[in-house]
Amino acid sequence: MPVNYATPAPDALFPVAGVRLGIAEAGIRKADRRDLTLIALDPGCRVAGVFTENRFCAAPVQLCRRHLDLGGEIRALVINTGIANAGTGELGVQAAWQTCSGVGRLLGIEERQVLPFSTGVILEPLPVDRLVAGLPRCVDDLRAEHWHAAAHAIMTTDTVAKAASRRIEVDGRTITITGISKGAGMIKPNMATMLGFMATDAGIAAPLLQQLVREAADESFNCITVDGDTSTNDSFVLIATGQAGIEFAAADAPGYDRLREAVIAVAVELAQAIVRDGEGATKFMSIVIEGGKDREECKRVGYAIGHSPLVKTAFFASDPNLGRILAAIGYAGIRDLDVNGVRVWLAGGGEEILVAEQGGRAASYREEDGARVMRQAEITVRVDLGRGTARGCVYTCDFSYDYVKINADYRS
Amino acid sequence: MPVNYATPAPDALFPVAGVRLGIAEAGIRKADRRDLTLIALDPGCRVAGVFTENRFCAAPVQLCRRHLDLGGEIRALVINTGIANAGTGELGVQAAWQTCSGVGRLLGIEERQVLPFSTGVILEPLPVDRLVAGLPRCVDDLRAEHWHAAAHAIMTTDTVAKAASRRIEVDGRTITITGISKGAGMIKPNMATMLGFMATDAGIAAPLLQQLVREAADESFNCITVDGDTSTNDSFVLIATGQAGIEFAAADAPGYDRLREAVIAVAVELAQAIVRDGEGATKFMSIVIEGGKDREECKRVGYAIGHSPLVKTAFFASDPNLGRILAAIGYAGIRDLDVNGVRVWLAGGGEEILVAEQGGRAASYREEDGARVMRQAEITVRVDLGRGTARGCVYTCDFSYDYVKINADYRS
Repeated sequence: MPVNYATPAPDALFPVAGVRLGIAEAGIRKADRRDLTLIALDPGCRVAGVFTENRFCAAPVQLCRRHLDLGGEIRALVINTGIANAGTGELGVQAAWQTCSGVGRLLGIEERQVLPFSTGVILEPLPVDRLVAGLPRCVDDLRAEHWHAAAHAIMTTDTVAKAASRRIEVDGRTITITGISKGAGMIKPNMATMLGFMATDAGIAAPLLQQLVREAADESFNCITVDGDTSTNDSFVLIATGQAGIEFAAADAPGYDRLREAVIAVAVELAQAIVRDGEGATKFMSIVIEGGKDREECKRVGYAIGHSPLVKTAFFASDPNLGRILAAIGYAGIRDLDVNGVRVWLAGGGEEILVAEQGGRAASYREEDGARVMRQAEITVRVDLGRGTARGCVYTCDFSYDYVKINADYRS
Repeated sequence: MPVNYATPAPDALFPVAGVRLGIAEAGIRKADRRDLTLIALDPGCRVAGVFTENRFCAAPVQLCRRHLDLGGEIRALVINTGIANAGTGELGVQAAWQTCSGVGRLLGIEERQVLPFSTGVILEPLPVDRLVAGLPRCVDDLRAEHWHAAAHAIMTTDTVAKAASRRIEVDGRTITITGISKGAGMIKPNMATMLGFMATDAGIAAPLLQQLVREAADESFNCITVDGDTSTNDSFVLIATGQAGIEFAAADAPGYDRLREAVIAVAVELAQAIVRDGEGATKFMSIVIEGGKDREECKRVGYAIGHSPLVKTAFFASDPNLGRILAAIGYAGIRDLDVNGVRVWLAGGGEEILVAEQGGRAASYREEDGARVMRQAEITVRVDLGRGTARGCVYTCDFSYDYVKINADYRS
């Protein structure tokens, strides 16, 4: 059961002019599964993406990077579940290329205009013949209204489909932003992958779009952790179709701030949905680090807290075990941190409680206050490092029996 | 139940001339517990230590550093369990100082000749009056034969006492090395701490001893991880009493190599015992990284594998889930790693199996071979990074239901 998250209804996901989605059963790994998704883009779209930094990055990720670097017009995305096509060497790259080739033949475009994505088991070969055989059914199924179906089709061991959509008005015109994501961990139990796909009908100049996808990722998918494991297949793509009749050429264009804000908001919603559906999650935690010298050290402290199995099990147990949080701050790697300047708050259920200051427990803190906050399903840990003005945020979930069960039982 | 570890019998722990140990019940946190240990050193001993790098380091660690920096002769160590005296601010430092003062009065030495150590709950004040009241009983109990009793007295939630001892012959003289350690995680469930105390009757010049304690820590306690959490109280101390009648002035002294080797062997045994007794551990894993450009990158890859909850749950499940190991190698942070040059072996039960090469699964690998190795209680993951001659090793345990149970139930 995800923590405070439900998939939006189909009609709450606004179509994005210029984007059509088609789904099919291709029998990639199991029968009777809608495991293949094609996203077709009208001419004139711009596409930018960010990808995993894992050195064992999957073959489709390698091709995505190559095709985007070529700078031509991207006209289609193709996503399969079941097999991650990672750890598959040169044969894997050939399979991803054949996938692009299959899409190209059907849509009358070149291979390099196709971006391939895979998610599923690592180290197994991609059954590319079955995948290509399924593509014509995807083409037949292409509809602008199929975001909801696509959100379901890209799931692997996710327990809910993840999607978000927003409309804003800029200069008298309506701009739509819609996206889907999948993942229940940075890596699923050897099912690799976080995937995110977002589209807007605004027109956005290529360099600005590249900057925006990076900013949106930094505020969303790069802020989440379930288990600290970075997948081989992580990909996040932002598409700007330009069909809303409004074009943003630079960051200082009128209304761009609002578009940027809305894009980031949708990305954050999609990213948080992954954590809320984290393996075995019973709680959703925001770790907010303020008062740092730079954003990077804030994130480092946030991840030290968010990755600590001791902190995560304490949240699972609703145990206000502050020593574990302080210890994580202390080992986060800020060598000149003055612990006497650090303050820590717990917030949840409408109250915020100062729990630590001056190197130890706050004089005003009472254990029953901490315990009351810890029983909430949504909890914020706020840390002021007391050494600057930078800020960073990490979203994570707790660590339960079910996490071990899910990850130990998988495949067995 | 620790993995393949049992406490040595009392007579297997050789006394070290110049070192006497005394234990008492002081009622630090609970009644009827031997929670206070005094280690008295004859004049002429040399002492060196390494301590936690956690910025929230405990008050006793601060005093240990200060007293060692003063360079005077250390004559006593005092260790309490129950309360870690960490996250206790200035009052905590005063309490640690009063502890040293109490020992000083009884032994007729100065406060600065005493090193204090604490392990237990973080953020609670140390009941220093009860501690000091217990010291006379420790003094009465001082015996050279009490290593075994001291190993038990420094336990907190450890399930077994940890000790090791060795004798070597150098130049016709017998040198003894004996040590004890405690800890079942880098941090226990808010019981802080790994502690290690070793003594030898060899004489070792001060700079050489400082170098030796650092080398021994790097090969032992700095190679272990249970949960990745670095405690606020971690301390490792090496004492050289000089009473064996042999003195080592420099690293090139005859026989020093053998002493060094024996000291490291005892430290490794004590450190491994902590992992074997890791919270919820059912398996002991050695992660051996070879072929790196430097030791530091080897350790980074080793820790990426050894910290990964996905890898650790796979070992718990005896699931040869190679994708998780490859993914961890890939995200360890070696940005120019050529994954095609990486090879991975699994070893256990007397066989070693090549599982991955050239960016994917080895052609010769069969799943049943991997599964057979994964069923062992002692498993080695060997990785050749294929880019140099450096080597590093990390010891860790698996991640079981009981880990979550122990850490979620503690305090509740």
